[in-house]
Amino acid sequence: MQQQISVITLGVDELVRSRRFYIDGFGWKPVFANAEIVFYQMNGLMLGTWLLSALEADLRRQHAVGPGAFSLAHNVARREDVQPTLDRLVSFGGTLLLPADAPPHGGFRGYAADPDGHAWEIAWNPAWPISREGYVTFGL
Amino acid sequence: MQQQISVITLGVDELVRSRRFYIDGFGWKPVFANAEIVFYQMNGLMLGTWLLSALEADLRRQHAVGPGAFSLAHNVARREDVQPTLDRLVSFGGTLLLPADAPPHGGFRGYAADPDGHAWEIAWNPAWPISREGYVTFGL
Repeated sequence: MQQQISVITLGVDELVRSRRFYIDGFGWKPVFANAEIVFYQMNGLMLGTWLLSALEADLRRQHAVGPGAFSLAHNVARREDVQPTLDRLVSFGGTLLLPADAPPHGGFRGYAADPDGHAWEIAWNPAWPISREGYVTFGL
Repeated sequence: MQQQISVITLGVDELVRSRRFYIDGFGWKPVFANAEIVFYQMNGLMLGTWLLSALEADLRRQHAVGPGAFSLAHNVARREDVQPTLDRLVSFGGTLLLPADAPPHGGFRGYAADPDGHAWEIAWNPAWPISREGYVTFGL
């Protein structure tokens, strides 16, 4: 099967609060929005923020309260961009989980949660090239 | 900021069980693996499956037990591919959440959870073009 992920859908409690984080914080532009979902065109896939009640109904399951066992990462071009990006996300409704530091596996990174608790790692990883279109490739 | 997600990292309890689902079930090839993480090169981003204990330590937070409020989607080329793909994932350790059906918002899809409870939607959505490289573009 094609090694392809078409959408990441995050359940959110309030679209206004979530839009502030993604549109004003990350500075991303939606490609579609209605009363229950916002889609962002990302690097070869879509990010959707969908009212949690609608996502739960679609999935036919109730979710645990609280953050799930996963994280998303956004890589930045320079080591010195990591902490200011985290600060910016916090100023638009995010919660700092870990200030920027150098982990044992290399690079430089910190974590902030979005207003619904979804964890975002902001990372500088010079080993992984990112094309102008945002396509990320594994490197060692 | 670039509209870019570099990595989706899923917390997993057992790598052997998770590898069976992703490598044998989806048929995806890892680009890197060690005793605690497996990376798959996807369409312009990486998918990582990392031991949950290591992810929790890195994030500096304990996660709720159970699935998080999110889903991932893998789109297939034909409507008739949806249910067989779900069946295949179930035969490699997945759990069926919703058999394939036509949702009110269009297309055709069902859901299966991976062995750690992470929800995958297998979807046919003819409105969203997928390039040969697997890059997915929003369409109406």
